[in-house]
Amino acid sequence: MNHIESILHFSRRLDEMKTVLRKTRVIATGQFEDDAQHSWHISAMAVLLADYANEPVNLEKTIKMLLFHDVVELEAGDTFCYDVNANKDKQEREAIAARNIYGRLPNALGEELLSLWEEFERGDTPEARFAAALDRAQPIFNNYYGGGGSWKEHGIKHSQVLARIAPVKDGCAPLYDHVRSLVEEGVQKGWLIDA
Amino acid sequence: MNHIESILHFSRRLDEMKTVLRKTRVIATGQFEDDAQHSWHISAMAVLLADYANEPVNLEKTIKMLLFHDVVELEAGDTFCYDVNANKDKQEREAIAARNIYGRLPNALGEELLSLWEEFERGDTPEARFAAALDRAQPIFNNYYGGGGSWKEHGIKHSQVLARIAPVKDGCAPLYDHVRSLVEEGVQKGWLIDA
Repeated sequence: MNHIESILHFSRRLDEMKTVLRKTRVIATGQFEDDAQHSWHISAMAVLLADYANEPVNLEKTIKMLLFHDVVELEAGDTFCYDVNANKDKQEREAIAARNIYGRLPNALGEELLSLWEEFERGDTPEARFAAALDRAQPIFNNYYGGGGSWKEHGIKHSQVLARIAPVKDGCAPLYDHVRSLVEEGVQKGWLIDA
Repeated sequence: MNHIESILHFSRRLDEMKTVLRKTRVIATGQFEDDAQHSWHISAMAVLLADYANEPVNLEKTIKMLLFHDVVELEAGDTFCYDVNANKDKQEREAIAARNIYGRLPNALGEELLSLWEEFERGDTPEARFAAALDRAQPIFNNYYGGGGSWKEHGIKHSQVLARIAPVKDGCAPLYDHVRSLVEEGVQKGWLIDA
């Protein structure tokens, strides 16, 4: 395949992201959210909240990172963040998927997207920290406004969610304050186990 | 509400985009695609195809335009592109929705997003032309690889689809060539009325 053909083939394959289901539910319908919806939501949030990032960020780079951060799940599947066993080999499974998936794109483009994904995973730049903040914060809204959502369904503990949202503080402090208050209210309402 | 509160309120409301259904169907499942999925797909395509835009584009601006181009449908609903009656007042309904929705954001942010939406609608800049190309091309893949999809369901004519994809040529000529060939094959397969 030439360059444009491999890009168009990849574009078509991205449609499958609409079928990779997460554990989080859409507020209004209670249906499971999919990777395409989630990636759109946090990319839009990046535009809305860029001025509130802890450090100045390159917005274009942040959004590229967010649009593609879950594409590895086309081959590695979604791993529930509170599933300890499934998370043991998550990094390895996703690294193999990333090389497979991006290896089929024209070299420069594939290398850029692979490198952005690796940066997101390392979390060692202002863009990666801001992107992680959005990725970790968005499900809190859905669980809270969905009446407990996956917290209640899976018997999640307060301490587990606090550990999960800790990176939000490093990327976007005002967003952290907000989701932290939702989490505390979630404990009060009995949606999270107080432990 | 202060600035951050109005932004977080808007961020939460964006979840509703996952429930605004289009006429296009997801290839693998046959379910109706929603606005969040569609907006994600074409934003990702902007990253992949930026080098093939007819004119040089500011990618960050293009993606902002694409991420938010359908947010007016939160209040105006999705209008089927081949529904002549519903399209008569589409522009007016959407302009009212845009002013309502973006008017609730902090001024500078709301004005930026409203202005980007108006630019997208006017289609008079390189970014707006490239964005329109992606918006018009993506459903062609879904209808073709979904075995005819909304073309067959609604008895759409070849000439209607050609008119619909004409702007793709102005924004991204190689993408036009590709979707044009899918449309011609769609006629051969009997999925589009040869008229």
